[in-house]
Amino acid sequence: MKKIITVSRQFGSGGRSIAKLVAEELGYDYYDSELVQKVAEETGFDPSYIADAGEYAPGRSILSYALGSSGVHGATSHMSASDYLWTTQSRIITELAEKGNCVIVGRCADFILRDREDCLNVFIHASRDYKAKRIVELYGVRDKSPNKRLEEKDTKRAVNYKYFTGREWGATENYHVSLDSSKLGSELCVKIIAEIAKK
Amino acid sequence: MKKIITVSRQFGSGGRSIAKLVAEELGYDYYDSELVQKVAEETGFDPSYIADAGEYAPGRSILSYALGSSGVHGATSHMSASDYLWTTQSRIITELAEKGNCVIVGRCADFILRDREDCLNVFIHASRDYKAKRIVELYGVRDKSPNKRLEEKDTKRAVNYKYFTGREWGATENYHVSLDSSKLGSELCVKIIAEIAKK
Repeated sequence: MKKIITVSRQFGSGGRSIAKLVAEELGYDYYDSELVQKVAEETGFDPSYIADAGEYAPGRSILSYALGSSGVHGATSHMSASDYLWTTQSRIITELAEKGNCVIVGRCADFILRDREDCLNVFIHASRDYKAKRIVELYGVRDKSPNKRLEEKDTKRAVNYKYFTGREWGATENYHVSLDSSKLGSELCVKIIAEIAKK
Repeated sequence: MKKIITVSRQFGSGGRSIAKLVAEELGYDYYDSELVQKVAEETGFDPSYIADAGEYAPGRSILSYALGSSGVHGATSHMSASDYLWTTQSRIITELAEKGNCVIVGRCADFILRDREDCLNVFIHASRDYKAKRIVELYGVRDKSPNKRLEEKDTKRAVNYKYFTGREWGATENYHVSLDSSKLGSELCVKIIAEIAKK
């Protein structure tokens, strides 16, 4: 029986919805935007900034951020905003994993919890056509083409993951299970992940 | 229902055994060394050379090979031995896929059959420790360390795959399902693959 399931996913693959359904199926807690909110409260960061920083490339200094925000607690001037957020986030994810059975989406949780034996790491990917169609349905048409939006979003996730973990985002060996949601369908993905977690 | 299942696998991961069990479970034909044998008969190549060429880096010219072998049929002097073998092998795999339900291990079958909608592509990987332990149990101790043997074998597979397909061997997006056999166990891997194929 796996207590913790981390779900990493390509933008548009439906991995987030799959993760939520897995949590419901197993009766596990589900962390995603709730986690972001929790981090926000602890750090005093603007929640919208944190939502971005979880996926976007690091770089902006904490000082430059603090000057334009309502205040940052406990950070030193040597730490960039994203490094400080990373430290806080890692601590929170570690604590949540201790608390009880849960599904955690994104946030490099697979890496943060890499030493736990009771952790199942999942990656959800999909064909480009499937993802392009899905993001237009979900988020509407934008100036940028769907393909451009997909590429930008996943590149940012990959850069962020590499920066903090030293690993390649989406590389097969980082996950115990990788599934193509466009080929298998969401329902079967949920079933397989839940089945593995129950073993 | 998927008619064809291709299984690619890291050396030592047990992917071949898993593939065989999936074929038994589903009542599908299973191709691996039999396929090699069939290629051998058609080309007049020495079967042991072909077994290697399926996984090893290309390069040796067909002329240099022909001079030391019992004869090659139908090849032109512009084709390397491995290119000629590739052409023959691709044709045979395409024909086998037409023939009926089957599981095909290795041989770039996932790429060769990429235009078929009824094809499920699987990748089996495992932790280094699991694979090292397994190859020593199966093939015994050698001069080279288990880690060295693992690395050499998979590097050759990757170079061969890249040469013929232009793709990265083991990259998540090339497969519909990737499973860590050391984490999940062979039995569960077989169950999951069979379950997906039946959908």
